[in-house]
Amino acid sequence: MSKVDWKPGNMLYPLPAVMVSVGEEPQEFNIITIAWTGTINSNPPMCYISVQPRRHSHALLVKCREFVINLTTRELARATDWCGVRSGRDHNKFEAMGLTPGNASVVKAPIIEEAPVNIECRVKEIISLGSHDMFLADVVNVKVDDRYMDAKTGKFSLSHSNPLCYVHGHYFDLGRMIGKFGYSVEKKKKKKPASKGGRDRSRLR
Amino acid sequence: MSKVDWKPGNMLYPLPAVMVSVGEEPQEFNIITIAWTGTINSNPPMCYISVQPRRHSHALLVKCREFVINLTTRELARATDWCGVRSGRDHNKFEAMGLTPGNASVVKAPIIEEAPVNIECRVKEIISLGSHDMFLADVVNVKVDDRYMDAKTGKFSLSHSNPLCYVHGHYFDLGRMIGKFGYSVEKKKKKKPASKGGRDRSRLR
Repeated sequence: MSKVDWKPGNMLYPLPAVMVSVGEEPQEFNIITIAWTGTINSNPPMCYISVQPRRHSHALLVKCREFVINLTTRELARATDWCGVRSGRDHNKFEAMGLTPGNASVVKAPIIEEAPVNIECRVKEIISLGSHDMFLADVVNVKVDDRYMDAKTGKFSLSHSNPLCYVHGHYFDLGRMIGKFGYSVEKKKKKKPASKGGRDRSRLR
Repeated sequence: MSKVDWKPGNMLYPLPAVMVSVGEEPQEFNIITIAWTGTINSNPPMCYISVQPRRHSHALLVKCREFVINLTTRELARATDWCGVRSGRDHNKFEAMGLTPGNASVVKAPIIEEAPVNIECRVKEIISLGSHDMFLADVVNVKVDDRYMDAKTGKFSLSHSNPLCYVHGHYFDLGRMIGKFGYSVEKKKKKKPASKGGRDRSRLR
């Protein structure tokens, strides 16, 4: 094991590659693919996206102050990549990729119907950091595709949607499940009761 | 395809599950596992971590204003989970998990030698958002394990380290590679030249 110093850079992976949809009117609707995104607060739920000012969607974000984070899947990989390379100045990305703009419940920006999860966001603050502006936002609604709801437990299984991971310039799908949060300290059950689905104890935050 | 409204919540995945190491002196060194992390700016390179004020590491972060983000792997999954569940008030986490604190090059906080990548960070700003404080930080150095460097191309392949993904309360490893950034618009090569490894065109930012 030997470590090499690199110059400072962006090496934090895996990240989600999300399609962010923006715009208030159908003729201005656009999609930008972003990996510089994450959750910044649990309560109230908040997340961010970082966007370069030269991007077509940047002006729409500043004007509308609302957007939708659409999670992506193996099936959506090509559209995800394409929407990260092409510009809304030259293309209607919904049409070009055969994606369906749908109504969000709270914001005016459209959801992408084909995405398994749509996170509706309202911008709270914009911080200029250099190459990128960071949009800090409140999550104001979440829509999920009921295909990924377990009818018995009522639990949502995002991993069944084949979510897309972005690692240093490459897209991957998810591999094997290793454990759930807290598995390293879990006591072995003495006898296995009939499955009740279990509480979701996701607390890595 | 049918969408259900959920209340606002944190549904942005997959995320990295990173071990953040903090402290200036060996007796105070600690590790906290965090999924609320991401890249917020490319130039200068910046990232963030969001931490609850009640966490033991929070006071160390405020005092030292430096930390190291250590990427994790399938091999490190148990330690990653354990360091997210247990507190540095009760445990020396390096000792308990058999992890090796090493010298960072720029910051005083220790690196975790067993991690494939160590991202040295210096806090620039702390923003209180509610349940969490967000630490915005400059990346001041990156150390990488040369096991994952391709001797021929000089390229670093993080995906060969089996990076850990965190999805809604569960840990996964990476699955299959789907494509590299820009693959959706790449022209088919007419004849295949001898491989030169290619430029790293990772620009999803």
